[in-house]
Amino acid sequence: MTASATLIHRPALRAPTSPRYPVPVMTGRKSFGSDNHACAHPEVIEALAAANAGDAHPYGADDWTARASEHLRDAFGAAGAFFVFNGSAANVLGVSLLLRPFEAVICAESSHLNVDECGATERILGNKLLTVATPDGKLTPDLVATRLTGRGDEHRAQPRLVEIAQVTELGTCYSLDELGRLGELCRSEGLYLYVDGARLANAAAYLDCELADLAASVDVLSFGGTKNGAVAAEAVIVMREELLADVPFLRKQQMQLGSKMRFMAAQFSALLEDKLWLRSAQHANAMAARLAAGVSGLPGVTVRYPVQSNAVFAALSTERIQALQREWTFYTWNEDEGVVRWMTAFDTSDDDVEAFIAAIRAS
Amino acid sequence: MTASATLIHRPALRAPTSPRYPVPVMTGRKSFGSDNHACAHPEVIEALAAANAGDAHPYGADDWTARASEHLRDAFGAAGAFFVFNGSAANVLGVSLLLRPFEAVICAESSHLNVDECGATERILGNKLLTVATPDGKLTPDLVATRLTGRGDEHRAQPRLVEIAQVTELGTCYSLDELGRLGELCRSEGLYLYVDGARLANAAAYLDCELADLAASVDVLSFGGTKNGAVAAEAVIVMREELLADVPFLRKQQMQLGSKMRFMAAQFSALLEDKLWLRSAQHANAMAARLAAGVSGLPGVTVRYPVQSNAVFAALSTERIQALQREWTFYTWNEDEGVVRWMTAFDTSDDDVEAFIAAIRAS
Amino acid sequence: MTASATLIHRPALRAPTSPRYPVPVMTGRKSFGSDNHACAHPEVIEALAAANAGDAHPYGADDWTARASEHLRDAFGAAGAFFVFNGSAANVLGVSLLLRPFEAVICAESSHLNVDECGATERILGNKLLTVATPDGKLTPDLVATRLTGRGDEHRAQPRLVEIAQVTELGTCYSLDELGRLGELCRSEGLYLYVDGARLANAAAYLDCELADLAASVDVLSFGGTKNGAVAAEAVIVMREELLADVPFLRKQQMQLGSKMRFMAAQFSALLEDKLWLRSAQHANAMAARLAAGVSGLPGVTVRYPVQSNAVFAALSTERIQALQREWTFYTWNEDEGVVRWMTAFDTSDDDVEAFIAAIRAS
Amino acid sequence: MTASATLIHRPALRAPTSPRYPVPVMTGRKSFGSDNHACAHPEVIEALAAANAGDAHPYGADDWTARASEHLRDAFGAAGAFFVFNGSAANVLGVSLLLRPFEAVICAESSHLNVDECGATERILGNKLLTVATPDGKLTPDLVATRLTGRGDEHRAQPRLVEIAQVTELGTCYSLDELGRLGELCRSEGLYLYVDGARLANAAAYLDCELADLAASVDVLSFGGTKNGAVAAEAVIVMREELLADVPFLRKQQMQLGSKMRFMAAQFSALLEDKLWLRSAQHANAMAARLAAGVSGLPGVTVRYPVQSNAVFAALSTERIQALQREWTFYTWNEDEGVVRWMTAFDTSDDDVEAFIAAIRAS
Repeated sequence: MTASATLIHRPALRAPTSPRYPVPVMTGRKSFGSDNHACAHPEVIEALAAANAGDAHPYGADDWTARASEHLRDAFGAAGAFFVFNGSAANVLGVSLLLRPFEAVICAESSHLNVDECGATERILGNKLLTVATPDGKLTPDLVATRLTGRGDEHRAQPRLVEIAQVTELGTCYSLDELGRLGELCRSEGLYLYVDGARLANAAAYLDCELADLAASVDVLSFGGTKNGAVAAEAVIVMREELLADVPFLRKQQMQLGSKMRFMAAQFSALLEDKLWLRSAQHANAMAARLAAGVSGLPGVTVRYPVQSNAVFAALSTERIQALQREWTFYTWNEDEGVVRWMTAFDTSDDDVEAFIAAIRAS
Repeated sequence: MTASATLIHRPALRAPTSPRYPVPVMTGRKSFGSDNHACAHPEVIEALAAANAGDAHPYGADDWTARASEHLRDAFGAAGAFFVFNGSAANVLGVSLLLRPFEAVICAESSHLNVDECGATERILGNKLLTVATPDGKLTPDLVATRLTGRGDEHRAQPRLVEIAQVTELGTCYSLDELGRLGELCRSEGLYLYVDGARLANAAAYLDCELADLAASVDVLSFGGTKNGAVAAEAVIVMREELLADVPFLRKQQMQLGSKMRFMAAQFSALLEDKLWLRSAQHANAMAARLAAGVSGLPGVTVRYPVQSNAVFAALSTERIQALQREWTFYTWNEDEGVVRWMTAFDTSDDDVEAFIAAIRAS
Repeated sequence: MTASATLIHRPALRAPTSPRYPVPVMTGRKSFGSDNHACAHPEVIEALAAANAGDAHPYGADDWTARASEHLRDAFGAAGAFFVFNGSAANVLGVSLLLRPFEAVICAESSHLNVDECGATERILGNKLLTVATPDGKLTPDLVATRLTGRGDEHRAQPRLVEIAQVTELGTCYSLDELGRLGELCRSEGLYLYVDGARLANAAAYLDCELADLAASVDVLSFGGTKNGAVAAEAVIVMREELLADVPFLRKQQMQLGSKMRFMAAQFSALLEDKLWLRSAQHANAMAARLAAGVSGLPGVTVRYPVQSNAVFAALSTERIQALQREWTFYTWNEDEGVVRWMTAFDTSDDDVEAFIAAIRAS
Repeated sequence: MTASATLIHRPALRAPTSPRYPVPVMTGRKSFGSDNHACAHPEVIEALAAANAGDAHPYGADDWTARASEHLRDAFGAAGAFFVFNGSAANVLGVSLLLRPFEAVICAESSHLNVDECGATERILGNKLLTVATPDGKLTPDLVATRLTGRGDEHRAQPRLVEIAQVTELGTCYSLDELGRLGELCRSEGLYLYVDGARLANAAAYLDCELADLAASVDVLSFGGTKNGAVAAEAVIVMREELLADVPFLRKQQMQLGSKMRFMAAQFSALLEDKLWLRSAQHANAMAARLAAGVSGLPGVTVRYPVQSNAVFAALSTERIQALQREWTFYTWNEDEGVVRWMTAFDTSDDDVEAFIAAIRAS
């Protein structure tokens, strides 16, 4: 390290006055904190090991990537499929394919894009977010329409893209009908539609539909691997042929081009093999449904949103939350309202759920 | 996919008039194309499997990350160590810790930062690169000084950071003495020093020094895992305590925060265990040295730069290059001058090298 | 123009489905549309002519700039004063002095920064805006506090700057007491305070205070010239010595460095001479007060916000609005609620106001 | 100013080790330092005064803007003409109309875009500059071709736009033939052509051609007013209809939308009236030619580049430079080589030139 006092240093961020957001203790019992608390699916690890054989062309010019991409294109009816390292990157890449610098994204106030990506869309792309408060994390044509003012006025960032998450941050799902109506609005208003599919598998499982059905009205979407059993892999699914040419350059510039890409592809191949992605999502959803059913009748516990994926939001007293968190791992979602989030994963067992229900009942 | 004709699409990039940069055929013989043609080290895959055990806190709040980070901090004498997904990301994160928007990077014209990152520094950070032509990929205090004009002049982007690669894109190494002199210049001129260490392991092996020695005059550096046997993992090593506070935010915003970070850390732990990173780099360097020695005397073959890592650059006739590329995988570095690059990896064997030398001799 | 069909063109923005925002007819009568409908103050034009004498150093190294800057520094008790071309530029430069890329601005939903700058803060700086709904365009410590969540959490853009406008987009003024309380909150929470002073003159006139009083708790602010009789000139007032060094570079990079800066300075000197800025603002405010008083009792006309500057917002029926707009120039502010904005300027006369009141009464 | 010690401040830029770039003394004699040392043309000031009459629509929806824009469109055969505040802004806006984020600009190493805009292209737009060393500031098809490598390779920023200045930073002019050949290259290679026309008037005067001739092969160009007698006004001339729709939004976002735009337009109308712009440029060019002729034979004075506009570059001894700068205002262009730049303006007189020649002779 250089020692000279003549250098001016960047200032450290001051200690924030509010405490660092509380990380729940990892208690040893199965975590209900997040699907990314889970490990990877054993078949994913096996696929990595199997891909570790000899030389391969880097940057996606390998057979593993060709196969997994083709599989994804077929499943979605897509023009192209591209791997990136995480969900924020998938969202940023997707948005970057669709917008000019002065165009804006209409999204839910509660969206991951708005809340949980440290301002990446604004900073990395420069595009403005036009947020909408929602009761359940879901945009509707009417809610979108509230942000369609000022079009053609040079003083205003121009709304151009509707971003939704399927499933939403609140665990809710858009029905195919709701998706279709949003798609219609977008077409009639000259808007693009992007879907953050970090948990798209859970949506497909809940709606009992094909991946292609979820992409029917969509221009670009992501298909999450990591929360569904991968180590670190997400796919950006491009539905329009004419968007393809920019993808390699934007992905590289956004620092998402993996050199040994076979290992990203291999993870997806494992998930796609015999629809492991679907079975895992069905299981996780079933565990959440079981948990929701088990706590629904309990006094002092109110399930907050429709349980349509692998998340259960519930309101209960601060005392009970604190007592439970001494033994179980989960996040407080809204401290003021006493709302917690319980998430299940591919490896949550019936016993885990039953034990947790028992603990909640006893709290 | 939406069908409406009212949507305006992004234009596809026109087919470039020059052919797509030629990807060499993967011939079945050991590739001398790049160290990222190689697979991962088996111990890295084993470490991934071993880390795949139960729940863990995400985003680096897990034990694997704690251990690997500590190991790296100790090895470098660093203030902090942070994992990212690839080398471009490590460079962008490193630079972003050090510069204000109007400050510029002095770097070699041939640097990865300038040539091979699709303009990420300019686009993601907005900082200008001040490039310097070099004979061998290495900056010297005198070369740096040529770009120190215009300081204090508001019309000019202000030089503030010297970026070097260790080893360079041309396979050359800075001696510790050369590093020290660059560090002195930086201190006396109020400049930061960043080292792109995508192949830092090969430099340590060549110089037979400690990692801490390579960081002695440096503010931030990267330590590459991927080219040295990892699946996809690089570390950003921060030598100044006062830079630490910004790192988590910038890493997240730059889309490099892995949720299941234990798997990134586990790769590094495998590399750090018993200095696997060093043994692998020593082996790769030895293979390059053997290759260079084997072709040095051959008529019509000229080794171009000092062989100080795992790369051999050589000039030979276009006919011989083309003949060799039918059987062996490697890149033409400079078509006009008939220069090729041959790279070795941790898994290049003596037999691979001997067979390749024989083929070159016979060409 | 090149004719080749091989070039790929940028797409034209599709015709927006909503009509272009309606520009009121310029009717020949004095406009109540905006203070930027007005011409420049004759003394400003005279000052331009007077400054047009011989050679001068460019980029602000001239005597006019030295004098006007000193005058401004004295008036505000500031560390420095810097000229830019318009209000959006002043805001962007001001914010850029204070924030790191991952830091965010807390501002009113109705703020110019959020609504009327085509996303410049997000695009030019990359910083996220955290907007707050307000009843009257004014932030309060309690409203600011609602956006102080997630500090220290790397997933969240970090709130770091409170941006207010004095006067606000709704014509309201912060009292010195309200300013002081916001300043206290900022100090205690480690936040910066930036004031968009495009109409700061009107605030000083309304509050009957010194410019320095308006800057007492502030880190950086703008002082608008254009809406107060200048041709095109705004000043960025920097209250902290340690922020000064970056200003020249950021201003230049943000394309706001005027070469013949004497002409920007001369405009401000004219405004500052014998407090022309204050007399003009007092007059404009008085005209708005007279207008508000004149329409207050009228049936079917409701004045919406406290009239504390040179703007009157009023609700009346769509029919009356349309009838009035055939003869008078003003904007509909909120079509759904039938709210219009009437603005006065330094050159609005008593007769203009009385004639307008008569027309409103007769409508 | 807030006093709290809990706030973290931005660091001041350290005092640069090299002295601030030397600003020549303004000596009282006519400056040969720059055409922006000159005042505005009296007719420009008169036009400002004439435009200062009553209300007008802001943001360019006024009659002055309509007239001046039409005049410019006619003169260039352009699709549109748009006013901005300075030359850097014109260049940034022009480039922003043409490039996607991963595309790059090929430009001369000595170009204003590369050297004198504090990295605005990189920071504001994010586009990389691919610079080329030139003997005389002018690009040729062959020089451009040296930067057309790596097209289609996702690791490389994609060359897409050729930027030239007419006249160049070195005072040289592209002939119409040279322009045509660059245009041909651009069309055949799928590149755009942008012209920085900060001194386009001087080029038209030198080449004795129409403005439309200078735009014949060009996609977007700027037409400088400020260096040619305006107060602060430049025009961006857009030759392609399909680029027009983005301009208002990009100009606003780039903080270049003037509210009282009539005053920007009025400056141009004055310049366009009876071709004042051309007469002024012809005069300035003639003064430079006279100066060059007067010093050409002098011992120890070497004129460096062809004098094709209003600049004379000359090499002479450091002692003579220093002696002359005590009495006359001009810049040292290259200290190492003893090269100075002498510039003339619309208001440089025969007597000024003769006196300066006499001083040089006597030095």
